[in-house]
Amino acid sequence: MAQVDWILKNAFVVCLDEGFLIYPRGAVAVRGGDILAVGEEGDITARFQARDTMDCGGRTLLPGLVNAHTHVPMTLLRGVADDRRLDVWLLGYVMPVEREFVSPDVVRLGTLLACAEMIRGGVTCFADMYYFEESVAAATAEAGLRALCAQTVLKFPTPDAASYEDSLASARDFIGRWRGHPLIVPSVAPHAPYTCTPEILRSCTDLAIEFDVPLHTHLSETSQEVEQCREAYGMPVIPWIKKAGLLEAKVLAAHCVHVDEGEIRTLSHARAGVAHNPSSNLKLASGFAPVRTMLEAGLNVGIGTDGPSSNNDLDMFEEMRLASFIAKGHSGDPTALPAKTVLAMATRLGARAMHLGEVTGSIEAGKRADLILVDLEGVHNRPHFERDPEGVYSRIVYAAKASDVTDVMVEGRWLLRDRKLLTIDLDPLLKEADDFARRVDAFLVTREGSLLSKLVAIEGAVQEESYEVQVKVRLPDPSAAETALASRLEILRRAHYHEFDTYFTFADESQDRLRYREDEFVEDDGSVSQVRYRLTLTGPAAEGEYEHSVLLSRSRFIAPATHSLRFYREYFKPEGEINIAKDRRRWLVHFRGEEFFVNLDRLTSPALEGAFLEVKSRTWSRRDAEEKARLIVDLLRELGATHAEPVTADYPNIMKDTGRS
Amino acid sequence: MAQVDWILKNAFVVCLDEGFLIYPRGAVAVRGGDILAVGEEGDITARFQARDTMDCGGRTLLPGLVNAHTHVPMTLLRGVADDRRLDVWLLGYVMPVEREFVSPDVVRLGTLLACAEMIRGGVTCFADMYYFEESVAAATAEAGLRALCAQTVLKFPTPDAASYEDSLASARDFIGRWRGHPLIVPSVAPHAPYTCTPEILRSCTDLAIEFDVPLHTHLSETSQEVEQCREAYGMPVIPWIKKAGLLEAKVLAAHCVHVDEGEIRTLSHARAGVAHNPSSNLKLASGFAPVRTMLEAGLNVGIGTDGPSSNNDLDMFEEMRLASFIAKGHSGDPTALPAKTVLAMATRLGARAMHLGEVTGSIEAGKRADLILVDLEGVHNRPHFERDPEGVYSRIVYAAKASDVTDVMVEGRWLLRDRKLLTIDLDPLLKEADDFARRVDAFLVTREGSLLSKLVAIEGAVQEESYEVQVKVRLPDPSAAETALASRLEILRRAHYHEFDTYFTFADESQDRLRYREDEFVEDDGSVSQVRYRLTLTGPAAEGEYEHSVLLSRSRFIAPATHSLRFYREYFKPEGEINIAKDRRRWLVHFRGEEFFVNLDRLTSPALEGAFLEVKSRTWSRRDAEEKARLIVDLLRELGATHAEPVTADYPNIMKDTGRS
Repeated sequence: MAQVDWILKNAFVVCLDEGFLIYPRGAVAVRGGDILAVGEEGDITARFQARDTMDCGGRTLLPGLVNAHTHVPMTLLRGVADDRRLDVWLLGYVMPVEREFVSPDVVRLGTLLACAEMIRGGVTCFADMYYFEESVAAATAEAGLRALCAQTVLKFPTPDAASYEDSLASARDFIGRWRGHPLIVPSVAPHAPYTCTPEILRSCTDLAIEFDVPLHTHLSETSQEVEQCREAYGMPVIPWIKKAGLLEAKVLAAHCVHVDEGEIRTLSHARAGVAHNPSSNLKLASGFAPVRTMLEAGLNVGIGTDGPSSNNDLDMFEEMRLASFIAKGHSGDPTALPAKTVLAMATRLGARAMHLGEVTGSIEAGKRADLILVDLEGVHNRPHFERDPEGVYSRIVYAAKASDVTDVMVEGRWLLRDRKLLTIDLDPLLKEADDFARRVDAFLVTREGSLLSKLVAIEGAVQEESYEVQVKVRLPDPSAAETALASRLEILRRAHYHEFDTYFTFADESQDRLRYREDEFVEDDGSVSQVRYRLTLTGPAAEGEYEHSVLLSRSRFIAPATHSLRFYREYFKPEGEINIAKDRRRWLVHFRGEEFFVNLDRLTSPALEGAFLEVKSRTWSRRDAEEKARLIVDLLRELGATHAEPVTADYPNIMKDTGRS
Repeated sequence: MAQVDWILKNAFVVCLDEGFLIYPRGAVAVRGGDILAVGEEGDITARFQARDTMDCGGRTLLPGLVNAHTHVPMTLLRGVADDRRLDVWLLGYVMPVEREFVSPDVVRLGTLLACAEMIRGGVTCFADMYYFEESVAAATAEAGLRALCAQTVLKFPTPDAASYEDSLASARDFIGRWRGHPLIVPSVAPHAPYTCTPEILRSCTDLAIEFDVPLHTHLSETSQEVEQCREAYGMPVIPWIKKAGLLEAKVLAAHCVHVDEGEIRTLSHARAGVAHNPSSNLKLASGFAPVRTMLEAGLNVGIGTDGPSSNNDLDMFEEMRLASFIAKGHSGDPTALPAKTVLAMATRLGARAMHLGEVTGSIEAGKRADLILVDLEGVHNRPHFERDPEGVYSRIVYAAKASDVTDVMVEGRWLLRDRKLLTIDLDPLLKEADDFARRVDAFLVTREGSLLSKLVAIEGAVQEESYEVQVKVRLPDPSAAETALASRLEILRRAHYHEFDTYFTFADESQDRLRYREDEFVEDDGSVSQVRYRLTLTGPAAEGEYEHSVLLSRSRFIAPATHSLRFYREYFKPEGEINIAKDRRRWLVHFRGEEFFVNLDRLTSPALEGAFLEVKSRTWSRRDAEEKARLIVDLLRELGATHAEPVTADYPNIMKDTGRS
């Protein structure tokens, strides 16, 4: 008789393999981290001798559940701001709190709490995406769970990187260090097509291919995302990311809510995995994913909870039930997504979507021993109809609860026995989490009065490129520059405005500034063709000085101004106001392979002699910004402005300095 | 200091009253079954002296949850046949099992199990509708829960009544006996407009008004129901039931999925309560109820689980979460149905929808002491953000679970302490339930091969009126009858068919018979204008003989025949076949205030001399059937057929008897 470490016997074994085998009185033999055999109890106990035997008391033995998409550290932001508009939630709460608080320690704390919750709820494997992902990986390995850990890359500065170049570098380091770990698959996560540049998508793809690891991303979550993609690139999201090369990697795509049949075929040909997140898609009102069509197209569609701040927990039982219910409700067909299919999605198909199909997701000899025991004997799940053994799928999906999970094993190691956590000491973590929440509360009490929070509460603000290269000079006579712009330089676009700006100033130390601007578009004949009203909120800038130019890094939000100046004055209650009117001519110049904006401004109120020449460029890339800062000097020379008086102040400060405001 | 029975102190008290009061360190004073006071802990302990004090350890004290619509005995049918088409589920499984098994004892068992599950999950009050409702009431009172118990009335024979007249009589008895009970409000439930006749709706309304009790019903659950109502009555469901008088009663209407704004106003003016059942509406693919519009119109919209066979449990926490999520997902607005609103629906508004708003649904002095304690300190619900006390709503609705309920009090009596049931001895009940399930399994194994199950599995069968009055005579010369029909009788409609019938016969004892019929519609000029194909399944009949006529009571299902005779022959595998072709002329006759069908048939294959005269009428009412059975003799006399040879056999048996088949 072969020797094994564990025999789990007297179990109702539901294998969730391709053949959907069920052993009503079954057993599983485990050696090391592996499943050696599964079958009828009599057969298994006859073939193997076990160091330890566990009598499962007739409970149901399943492969561990696979949470195919989440952001586990966001456990610490559970319920921080629910029932808000999406932009208010994200820009007003989640992102400011993350910027202020997220650190390797906080990520570790959130991960351990999430692991505790998931172990208790029968999850043995999850796909994560967050910042400081190496801390997620370390805490997960310590808790004993299996995970795909993907380091987020975004075009914005993030809590763990000032630029996306930094993010990519740390993703590379992380993947290099963790590849080959028995529990952790390190990975990279270009956050989403709309938060990444084509260059980011390409770099992440190359990185994933180089190390042969999956790539985790969000695709087609909202209809707005699809519309923006069509506007920017003339095609919906999936063709666009295919064109950008992303599908060359082993992709795990979260959401795929707004994809048509052609896009589904594209994903299927690329063997991309999909993570369906029913709670998140409903709670954030993103829409109804075409799950049935994706499954019919042969896609591996798993189920994910998404982060606990859009759920608000990590309960895969709730997620399974919901996946089935909304598929039925939305299609009008009560046979859609039956319990059996849904449980396969939450196990085998989820593992395949994560490109871990060989490792976990079913009870089969040769896979890792990721197993859970579920008690289906509670009063909320009785009686059982047994004429069809497959009734067990209905009991699990429609009536079982996370709290019915009693025992959890991952890679042959017990993480939960009789509902007791074996790898995580919960109480000190909960205390730490409470302290964290107190600090966030205090921050938000102040923050909720911030300009940005007040802005996003009333208008749909959009974050702009964070790097800005600029130079400004005062020209008593701008004719040399005008000549250069009229004849020597390559002009891509030109415009002429009358700009009426009102700057709101505030006494507090944040140095945020809010500008209300009316832009009159002036035609060649001098007539005004249209007027645009915008609000711009800028945060304090970190500056870098170059020869003649300034490199600024700062947050900048633009929103359409749909209300009156009077309304904003009462709403934002500024300490002071500065009013400036100017005539601005603006050129988009192509210069040595880069694009720059050139403004030629004449201040009309308060009136100032001469003109100001500004050369500006904005970008998401720090490297790009540095390159442009160097080029700008040459462009200034072309404009005949090298020896002009440089001005470092912006217009409100020029007004202050000249005492004219 | 006033003396009270209980002070519950050191609780985070969430009152759910109109003002949504919250006492982060609060207390409640209870005397007898009543809440005497709620407030800050210091204030309550200063004002009252308690016989017993409970330290709630900081847990959250809520009014008990109100399950505004369910069928609790169906706990025993949990998971009996999931993921089926609606007609297959109802006609193939639920109704046959109910007909076979439902008894007062079974109802009592299912009710006690349901009460155990609901107590554990924090439900203190529910609205029920089932058969043998007096057994539901008795078991609920024994368990100590509060309930609106409504005796179902249907036009079909039910497990507890051979006719709706019997149902109405037992509803009257039940209400008379139970009115004034401290926990139970007895009530009547006309099942739904499409399963009731106008007379049933009127009688139930009168009964509810006479005893001043609410009336519980299903309204506008599916779009099919609305279409059928438009077809039958030329208007959607709500105007129709208003016309039928139903809204004169204090109505609790389950579902209201397919109602427009005008119908919502009608319900609102009638002060009808609505029970929203998100799980059931999704699982059965009924649709998305316009909950937000109903709330905005001032309707009291509660939340219900519906019966556990369409859910599959009685978990109001899941139901709350789902109510919020689908409202957000369906409207595309993440601010729709916020947690605070949803919790009010599951408590105060639900009680009002049940017309029990003065009694329960919030923690307020003067209401009954229906209270639950919930532990929000689990790892799946940490940390807590406390800057806004209303964050508690989000914790309860989005992350709390039924298993977080620790203590339950109803009418001042403890039903659950520290998660232990105090009024129900669960183990013997669970054993009984398992035995019940074994018997149902055995029944269904046989039943799944039945003709009806096989029929509904492929075609959309509809149940026909169960009472049939008929007489058949053989007329060597039908000219007297023809003359009467042409001149003396009032004819409402006439038609002429060639009918080609194939009867499938089966050897088993069930005596079910299946007929495949092709009806050629013959025009006045003898041409055939269209052909109709139908299947009719008739069960064995219970007969009552009258002077010349026969009163039959039997199940009869009609389905369109969308396949070929060859297909049905292979699918149903009959033992034998009888083929009959005939020429049928048919009149709908108005005679002494009643309507009768008169058929004059000439058999063409096998050919028989003379003609057969049939007089028939179908009805849902036994009283009506008896009245018609008496009238039929007079009609026969008018047709000059009193002395003709009466035939009691149907055509297949006539063929057998004459040896011609």
